Amino acid sequence: MTPLTATDLISRAEALDAVDPLAHARDRFDLPLGVVYLDGNSLGAKPVTVGPAVADVLDRQWGTDLIASWTRNDWWQAPERFGERIAPMVGAAPGQVVVADSTTVNVFKQAVGGLRLRPGRSRIVADASTFPTNAYVVESAAELMGHTVHWVDPEGLGEVLDDDVALVMMNHVDYRMGTLRDMPALTTQAHACGALVQWDVCHSVGIMPIAFDALGVDLAVGCTYKYLNGGPGAPAFSYVNTQHIPAFAQPLSGWNGHADPFAMETSYRPDEGISRMRVGTPDIVSLLTAEAALEAFNGVDLGLARAKTQSLTELFIAAVDALVPSGVVEIVTPRDPVRRAGQVSVAHPEAGNLVEALARRGVITDFRRPDIVRFGFAPLYVRHGDAVTAALALADALEAVT
Amino acid sequence: MTPLTATDLISRAEALDAVDPLAHARDRFDLPLGVVYLDGNSLGAKPVTVGPAVADVLDRQWGTDLIASWTRNDWWQAPERFGERIAPMVGAAPGQVVVADSTTVNVFKQAVGGLRLRPGRSRIVADASTFPTNAYVVESAAELMGHTVHWVDPEGLGEVLDDDVALVMMNHVDYRMGTLRDMPALTTQAHACGALVQWDVCHSVGIMPIAFDALGVDLAVGCTYKYLNGGPGAPAFSYVNTQHIPAFAQPLSGWNGHADPFAMETSYRPDEGISRMRVGTPDIVSLLTAEAALEAFNGVDLGLARAKTQSLTELFIAAVDALVPSGVVEIVTPRDPVRRAGQVSVAHPEAGNLVEALARRGVITDFRRPDIVRFGFAPLYVRHGDAVTAALALADALEAVT
Repeated sequence: MTPLTATDLISRAEALDAVDPLAHARDRFDLPLGVVYLDGNSLGAKPVTVGPAVADVLDRQWGTDLIASWTRNDWWQAPERFGERIAPMVGAAPGQVVVADSTTVNVFKQAVGGLRLRPGRSRIVADASTFPTNAYVVESAAELMGHTVHWVDPEGLGEVLDDDVALVMMNHVDYRMGTLRDMPALTTQAHACGALVQWDVCHSVGIMPIAFDALGVDLAVGCTYKYLNGGPGAPAFSYVNTQHIPAFAQPLSGWNGHADPFAMETSYRPDEGISRMRVGTPDIVSLLTAEAALEAFNGVDLGLARAKTQSLTELFIAAVDALVPSGVVEIVTPRDPVRRAGQVSVAHPEAGNLVEALARRGVITDFRRPDIVRFGFAPLYVRHGDAVTAALALADALEAVT
Repeated sequence: MTPLTATDLISRAEALDAVDPLAHARDRFDLPLGVVYLDGNSLGAKPVTVGPAVADVLDRQWGTDLIASWTRNDWWQAPERFGERIAPMVGAAPGQVVVADSTTVNVFKQAVGGLRLRPGRSRIVADASTFPTNAYVVESAAELMGHTVHWVDPEGLGEVLDDDVALVMMNHVDYRMGTLRDMPALTTQAHACGALVQWDVCHSVGIMPIAFDALGVDLAVGCTYKYLNGGPGAPAFSYVNTQHIPAFAQPLSGWNGHADPFAMETSYRPDEGISRMRVGTPDIVSLLTAEAALEAFNGVDLGLARAKTQSLTELFIAAVDALVPSGVVEIVTPRDPVRRAGQVSVAHPEAGNLVEALARRGVITDFRRPDIVRFGFAPLYVRHGDAVTAALALADALEAVT
């Protein structure tokens, strides 16, 4: 087969962009001119709806309505309201998703609460490729609860499961490699030994359909500031399957999770529903920023988002193969599109310098030590043309750093 | 003595406002016209610095600089930077205050971490008049750690202390009654039995000098959205005395508290300093909103703020005494100004209706079940004239509801 030329790749990109059913969604974002932004897997771009919404929160809601906003502007229910908007994106019926606190804090809540649902079992089995914060906080939860943690490559999950396992904690996507895990199969394996399963969907929510209810997922956490574009450090969401909510005893038993917060009772009595996952006063400015950002998904079919992401990553891989001499970099993300999420990770010994060289060429990526450059393809605002531009910049940058 | 008339009170207020050294600070806030806002003890008013700062965060920092903002705009260090700005307000030398997560989450971190510093002791003694969220989460921490909690009226603290007490948890201000606790005396009592002491200064920070270092306070939490005016639900701060930081093992061991977060190590290794109190990715929009709000305190002497608050509450109490017939309401906040913080709490069986009737008269207060109306006097924007207006409105509202 004749290798593809840059001209071929650009033509292919133009053809794909011309028929992209999500092309119009790019106008829903403020993107800097002259920049190809491929780091939406770390911090999503800013939706145009955010500015006016935040101005209203600051000027009218806080500045004028002041304390009355808790009811008048429904601040109090914002965590649940926002959760219900995320719910269909993860295949959750109402009453199971709430937005509050950071991802890490939610992993802790779910780890302790999950262990309490499986008394008599002493082990946690957790994804060894997890983003480290989950690992750190799961070890802490295990120490407090008297459990042990067994770290496993998700591919070998079945081999380490037994009836002493209380909780299996998996990441839907390997944050370094971009590998997508098989949620149906791993969930089934965890359930076969009687364990609960918790999924971290930080790197998949917003770029593909997710089916928590249909798969019987027990617990999950997700991020709002990556592909959901909620703004830097915006609060995370917690999913608890409705069957577990009545008995779910999470350790951060703050007043916002109380059945009657304003009764100011001396003892904790959890809310009957998903609100029991709330802790303190909701971080309204960040929460309403992120909620406004979600309007960028109005009418977006996540099946189409998945197809576009696969098409973008496929084209990028083809372009790197064509434009970068063989053996100079290694694409460590699976070449099988079914096993890829939204990013393509490229290994190179000078990865840190490469990220800087790419940025000087207007292509924003990120570096994961020691040798990974991550190219993230957010389907709402990245074009096929951007994928080819990034590969061209990579080829050029490689000449500069090597 | 002849009772004061409304005219007397208004004259006195005008005289006091004319010589108020903090009068100019009111211009630092956007306040709605025709409203006397006396709920800054729950949600501070909006400083004028917030709007432009947040617009810059959204448009330039997030919208244009995108992921580079973590370094270019110093997002990563925002929790410590903001902490250092709060530090002098609580009498803390550098390196002991960081802003992250809600107050409730911080109480949990400090309770578990504090207990670990006193192994072999099995009891927590805690303020029975605390805002309930502290109680709920302390009970949770105690359950996880195998400790018991003994609830006490702070006035009787000395009677329940012994060498089995690991941790004493006190609130600087009773959120219902507005009573200010004696931080020096109670801290000394706790230390005499070898316990650590944790203070909650949510209702005192920003309205009076606080001296954590000088008193040898071990741990403290505080709120940024009340008298610090940081915006609804803005993140809280944690103080850990420098002597305890090296051994402080808080349970929410997230990646932001790691010694080298971007090394992505598999095991948790806490930062050497106060950053170990951080957990997940900082909530940048809320954090920078609150940091910008703190500019309202530029050049403000907290000794003057304390004196003004005492003067405001003194005048309000005198006005209520003069304008409301004896026995109709009960002022439950101490009449000794040394024992008052920033609010005056008024008990009445129809308190809920009174709050609504006051709001219709342009005076914003809040209701604490079953019978308390709280009048909060934030010294940066409340005037003596407002205190008299509020008392007049109370007298009028009482006629309407009774």
